[in-house]
Amino acid sequence: MSKAPKANAVVGQSGGPTGVINASLAGVIEEAKKHPEIENLYGAVHAVSGMVKENFIDLKKLSSETLERMAGSPSSALGSSRDKPDAEYCGRILDVFEKRNIKYFFYIGGNDSANTAHIINTMAAKAGYELRAFHVPKTVDNDLLVTDHCPGFGTAAKFVACALIGDDLDNRALPGIKIDVIMGRHAGFLTAAAALGRQRDDDGPHLIYMPERGVSMEKFLGDVEGVYKKLGRCVVAVSEGMCDVDHVTWTEKVVKQNERDSHGNVQLSGTGALADFLAGQIKEKLKIKRVRADTFGYLQRSFAGLQSPVDAKEARRCGQQAVKYAMSKMSGSVAMKRLANGADYKVALFCTELSSVAERTKSMPDEYINDQGNGITPAFVEYAMPLTGNLPKTEYIGNYPKI
Amino acid sequence: MSKAPKANAVVGQSGGPTGVINASLAGVIEEAKKHPEIENLYGAVHAVSGMVKENFIDLKKLSSETLERMAGSPSSALGSSRDKPDAEYCGRILDVFEKRNIKYFFYIGGNDSANTAHIINTMAAKAGYELRAFHVPKTVDNDLLVTDHCPGFGTAAKFVACALIGDDLDNRALPGIKIDVIMGRHAGFLTAAAALGRQRDDDGPHLIYMPERGVSMEKFLGDVEGVYKKLGRCVVAVSEGMCDVDHVTWTEKVVKQNERDSHGNVQLSGTGALADFLAGQIKEKLKIKRVRADTFGYLQRSFAGLQSPVDAKEARRCGQQAVKYAMSKMSGSVAMKRLANGADYKVALFCTELSSVAERTKSMPDEYINDQGNGITPAFVEYAMPLTGNLPKTEYIGNYPKI
Repeated sequence: MSKAPKANAVVGQSGGPTGVINASLAGVIEEAKKHPEIENLYGAVHAVSGMVKENFIDLKKLSSETLERMAGSPSSALGSSRDKPDAEYCGRILDVFEKRNIKYFFYIGGNDSANTAHIINTMAAKAGYELRAFHVPKTVDNDLLVTDHCPGFGTAAKFVACALIGDDLDNRALPGIKIDVIMGRHAGFLTAAAALGRQRDDDGPHLIYMPERGVSMEKFLGDVEGVYKKLGRCVVAVSEGMCDVDHVTWTEKVVKQNERDSHGNVQLSGTGALADFLAGQIKEKLKIKRVRADTFGYLQRSFAGLQSPVDAKEARRCGQQAVKYAMSKMSGSVAMKRLANGADYKVALFCTELSSVAERTKSMPDEYINDQGNGITPAFVEYAMPLTGNLPKTEYIGNYPKI
Repeated sequence: MSKAPKANAVVGQSGGPTGVINASLAGVIEEAKKHPEIENLYGAVHAVSGMVKENFIDLKKLSSETLERMAGSPSSALGSSRDKPDAEYCGRILDVFEKRNIKYFFYIGGNDSANTAHIINTMAAKAGYELRAFHVPKTVDNDLLVTDHCPGFGTAAKFVACALIGDDLDNRALPGIKIDVIMGRHAGFLTAAAALGRQRDDDGPHLIYMPERGVSMEKFLGDVEGVYKKLGRCVVAVSEGMCDVDHVTWTEKVVKQNERDSHGNVQLSGTGALADFLAGQIKEKLKIKRVRADTFGYLQRSFAGLQSPVDAKEARRCGQQAVKYAMSKMSGSVAMKRLANGADYKVALFCTELSSVAERTKSMPDEYINDQGNGITPAFVEYAMPLTGNLPKTEYIGNYPKI
């Protein structure tokens, strides 16, 4: 292991924003200030695109007041990018790194970002350029491999849980069917978080459909009808990646059908398509009158002022830790291991290889999904509950004893 | 004015839930306990429908712990109803009142609820039955006449403002066009609240469309294109009641067009229709690639744990005051008058006639809407800002000086 060089560092934020990705950035900045090996800390504006364009800001100049306000702000304070750099793109980034004497590269993002860091790091090694590349995990989907969970998930899960607590009470007040479409195209963690605020036996969501299990329209309608007959109402949490038994998403099927029907005139490819389709099926097939559907959309990842304290703290630690690792290692991705759960919840950070996190994603483990494929297990609640922080306790009195 | 009779009282919650309608209920309960004239306080489950079915619970029995938890819970803790009682329905309610010796009637709701209280009160007077009927205001739309503003609006406005703070930062991180559809079919107050969290000159929402002003598709697209050319992005807040220059809502036009095109097969009457339609128009006509649209839906009125402290306090005071008025008056609706604004913000409560609030609604005053009909004025911010409580301050650093 070679001595950490005296050189400049760059940090970027990539992919979809989260509620705590700026806490990770704050962690990188404050830790970098502690290490004289890092001379300048460049913030790359709009991630890799800012790196090739040399669109850099001086992060060591931020006041502590600005840093703290930024750490509490949702979204990506440096701007983000959806670019997936190829070898040529990465080559241009490396040219800029050489020109600017950048030998530390911190990249906050999901599995694609880990892959970008891995490619650039590999290219640098081949070229004999001493680059230290570290990935700091973030996703709202919680779908990264190796780590116990991802910074960003706890805050998004808190939003979804608070939304469902209120939405279930709304559905009690004015009974009917309510469908909520939640983010997570390939992993059901965030949709499953809809259940975290349940406190009464008959609290919704009563049904939860995650992308890991295909569900036929017959099964879906049968499930909804069963709950409705029993409770006179039904709240359903649905992943945007909810799919048919052939594992094609329902959204894809709906959009296709609509394109056929519309002769090219009607738009049904926006975010409301799945929600409206499912509501329509229930109205038409089950003849239930009051059916409503909401698609949570971007609010889940960017709502202001709703950070989970645990999540914000862990995100910041992960940012700090990436800089610490860079003082003694050549590359890696920061990961979390759960040491204790429940009231004693505690994690330890460790360093995993970039390649172990790059490209591939994690799904919900089988033990978190019920046998019917329409709900979660207590094991999932145990896993996810420490990550959101305390959720609001509520009171519904309409079912108290009559006089 | 006759002496307050020793008799029973009933309270109900009607119409769409809000984040603080239970604070008003808590106010009614705690004040009723102070007046020996009120023997039993019945909670009508699901509003008027609980009154005719004698579906009552004993509200004086609630523990103070339950009461406080309920006061902080969103939605209607007694359940709600959309029934608009006619004379026959009201007659059955009066029969139950007589049978149960109910001489105090408190109804928490919007203008329809004020009307129901008015009808029942008028019928009782004609029948020589001594009923005291009081309306406690609640709406998220803020569209009640007479009162300065409505309990429920401040909390919904806080949700919308926090959503837009985050959504605008999200749009900075990954630029494009973002459309957010917000509640309020006939009044633009809640849509206008999207602007309350703006803190930088170029913060979104950049365009705001309220139902009070018709906007042609040409004007809408021209506005969006103008902002996009200047900033490279655009965040648009749109009322669900956004209408064309002929004052027909765009939603109605879209659904009609779709019904024609679909031969009855396609559903486009769900909540996502307007958002998807507007996004589609921008993609098609302006050839802008990254266009996203969210419909906020029920989250605006029921999200848990996000009460505006001012709003919750005022809602509770309104509930208390209704009971106080009932000790010396025969009927009325509780209203608020603003005594001071800004840092010294203060309201006084007063009693207005039921008929002055019943049925009709209020629109945004002209002085709150800009000349172009696509934004708000500083006067609106002055009006609405004290009602939400403090909003999160954020930091975006991507536009800091380059090095």
